[in-house]
Amino acid sequence: MTPRPPTLLFRPRLLSSAINTQRSPACLLLPRTMSSAAEFKQAPHKLLVIPGPIEVSDEVLYANAHPSMSHVSPDFVPVFGDCIRMTREVVLSKEGQPFLIAGSGTLGWDQVASNLIQPGENALVLHTGYFGDSFTECLEIYGAKVDQLKAEVGGVVATEEIESALKAKKYRLLTFTHVDTSTGVLSDAKAIAETVRRVSPETLVILDGVCSVASEELRMDAWGIDVVLTASQKGLGVPPGLSILVASPKAIKVFEERTAPVASYYASWKKWLPIMKAYEAGKPAYFATPPVNLIYAYHTSLSAITKNAPSLEERFELHRAASKQIKDTAAELGLKQLPLKPEYAAMGMSALYFPSGMSAADVLPSLGAKGIVVAGGLHAAVKDKYFRVGHMGLTAVDGQRGDIQTVTNALKEVFGAKK
Amino acid sequence: MTPRPPTLLFRPRLLSSAINTQRSPACLLLPRTMSSAAEFKQAPHKLLVIPGPIEVSDEVLYANAHPSMSHVSPDFVPVFGDCIRMTREVVLSKEGQPFLIAGSGTLGWDQVASNLIQPGENALVLHTGYFGDSFTECLEIYGAKVDQLKAEVGGVVATEEIESALKAKKYRLLTFTHVDTSTGVLSDAKAIAETVRRVSPETLVILDGVCSVASEELRMDAWGIDVVLTASQKGLGVPPGLSILVASPKAIKVFEERTAPVASYYASWKKWLPIMKAYEAGKPAYFATPPVNLIYAYHTSLSAITKNAPSLEERFELHRAASKQIKDTAAELGLKQLPLKPEYAAMGMSALYFPSGMSAADVLPSLGAKGIVVAGGLHAAVKDKYFRVGHMGLTAVDGQRGDIQTVTNALKEVFGAKK
Repeated sequence: MTPRPPTLLFRPRLLSSAINTQRSPACLLLPRTMSSAAEFKQAPHKLLVIPGPIEVSDEVLYANAHPSMSHVSPDFVPVFGDCIRMTREVVLSKEGQPFLIAGSGTLGWDQVASNLIQPGENALVLHTGYFGDSFTECLEIYGAKVDQLKAEVGGVVATEEIESALKAKKYRLLTFTHVDTSTGVLSDAKAIAETVRRVSPETLVILDGVCSVASEELRMDAWGIDVVLTASQKGLGVPPGLSILVASPKAIKVFEERTAPVASYYASWKKWLPIMKAYEAGKPAYFATPPVNLIYAYHTSLSAITKNAPSLEERFELHRAASKQIKDTAAELGLKQLPLKPEYAAMGMSALYFPSGMSAADVLPSLGAKGIVVAGGLHAAVKDKYFRVGHMGLTAVDGQRGDIQTVTNALKEVFGAKK
Repeated sequence: MTPRPPTLLFRPRLLSSAINTQRSPACLLLPRTMSSAAEFKQAPHKLLVIPGPIEVSDEVLYANAHPSMSHVSPDFVPVFGDCIRMTREVVLSKEGQPFLIAGSGTLGWDQVASNLIQPGENALVLHTGYFGDSFTECLEIYGAKVDQLKAEVGGVVATEEIESALKAKKYRLLTFTHVDTSTGVLSDAKAIAETVRRVSPETLVILDGVCSVASEELRMDAWGIDVVLTASQKGLGVPPGLSILVASPKAIKVFEERTAPVASYYASWKKWLPIMKAYEAGKPAYFATPPVNLIYAYHTSLSAITKNAPSLEERFELHRAASKQIKDTAAELGLKQLPLKPEYAAMGMSALYFPSGMSAADVLPSLGAKGIVVAGGLHAAVKDKYFRVGHMGLTAVDGQRGDIQTVTNALKEVFGAKK
């Protein structure tokens, strides 16, 4: 079965409007308000295929241009409530408690570090790139004692290592980066959670899914993940500015039983938990003004992901297929992947070493000249030796856009010429 | 001189497009892309006159629907740099250091509490409503010892009281809410800063300008304010989701000389200061992904405020005039203001007691039925006894919209009938 691209649902209105304009004098009588979603089309721009922000649909951008609304109005409250419910669906959780807060993905770390671990308690950070170091620093600022298990560049931490670390010391929580945006390395979330449950069931499993939610297979409840934290601008297909986190009932219990005060004000679940519960129950509440327009945009994208075709499961498959196309082309062109094994490679992005004699200074402008924006390296150890291509969201799931073909063609032109 | 409304600059293009549509068959030949700012018009909606979020212009909303962009791209970096520079202009500062971070206004408190005061140091909070209590709580979470000087409901803290408090104890900082959104009380920022400078020059003056920046007269450098913190969704006329703060060189020095570690990760100036300096210098840098679309929206609004007519000074006048119209009408209708004296009343909002026998349950729906959204009470002591009308930004400065007339007419209909 070929899944139907999600935007198709909106196309009939677009088409009829186009027909009106081009074939019928009726347009002379119609006021040109441009105030309908079907008529809005974003300005022409280069194809953005970095590992986030990603391409955003016209429908989502139009929602981001929603007229200004009161954050406590009866029109907005149910929209926020829906977003809370659909956030649960998108991480495949029945009972998780979502937190939607104005901020970038990084704010999710502060939420974990200030609400779920007390000063002096131990945290185990699995390190597969840049973001392991940053999460470590964040945990330490809030008083946690952090041990790191560091994978080699492009590798993952072996299960045996995790197991012995968990046996040697009592950890309040373990964190890992599901997809490390700096390396494109995908950690095996299911196996990690399984190991923790088996060896140290009281340890919370914290998944940093900033670069994985809605693009990589992720089953929060089934796999036993306690926290999924992410942001709006990657697989979720919304502009940046929203910190999204889902906490398991077990994580909420750890939060509720903490004896040390929460060490942040803005990231405090003491403040946010009643707000999230109120909005979900259809009642307004106030702690800090939510990013109203971005919530409308998020609602539009979540509706496409959770209610329309392709389904979430189909989206996982479409990301796999898109990833395979990019990675097969890269292999044909002799471009080595940064992840050391195919099973460590993310589906939503590719990190590719330059062939010898080429660098970001050659490649990025060449691709830019073809209207394609990719990202340079980020991991300090190999920063200048590789580049990154994002293939999340629309680019991966809406075949009609032809983005994957556009990217593979451009890669062939840029790297094929040098072979 | 009658200032020209800022949107006028955009109108000629709007008009010519309308003429094309309605009078000329040329529209039959034009593709209907809707991808130009001049053509975009937000959907019809009720007039939002709460004390924030406020009405947002079509141009700003269109910018919020900007195609997705890389946060480190050469196209975006100068836009962010411009926003930093124009933020300085809007608070009338030459040397202040702006911080633009994804978050709501509340995050500004965490920035102050985690970067500018060390555990055990004293803070003096001037309390003129709901927001004094919240800022106090935030400061205490980060270890500050807080004393409050509490005004009666609708009043301000007397200068003499501030003076004796400053003489009695050494305070690292003093905070006040320039306009307390819960009461509509305007504090005399100039007099407060003058008092601090005179009595305790080493104390930092922190102004919470969430409900005042760009609507109330505010001269950061001339008055000697050390921190102005605000948010995007009030006088600045942008959707919510951006925490905006400007720190004086003196405040930055206090931050740089602190000996205790910064007690937040996401709000840490150790992280953000190099990022802001890099973007202003035209170089990309990364700590956490900025809210790219909102930065485009903010850029559009700041450009209107700082580069177009009416000027910032004219805007202060226009807010005064709009406020007078609303408050005069309220007085005619026998509606008492919550601020105890006219000189304590904000220009960007009005807090008005219901006449006896009326309540939010009567008034808000009546105004809603006329297409007008106002806000209920927020200050716990008098919550059910008053309502709030916002008159900031477009509503106050763009006379062609007729918003103030719409509001005064509706107030007359709703309250006049009961006289």
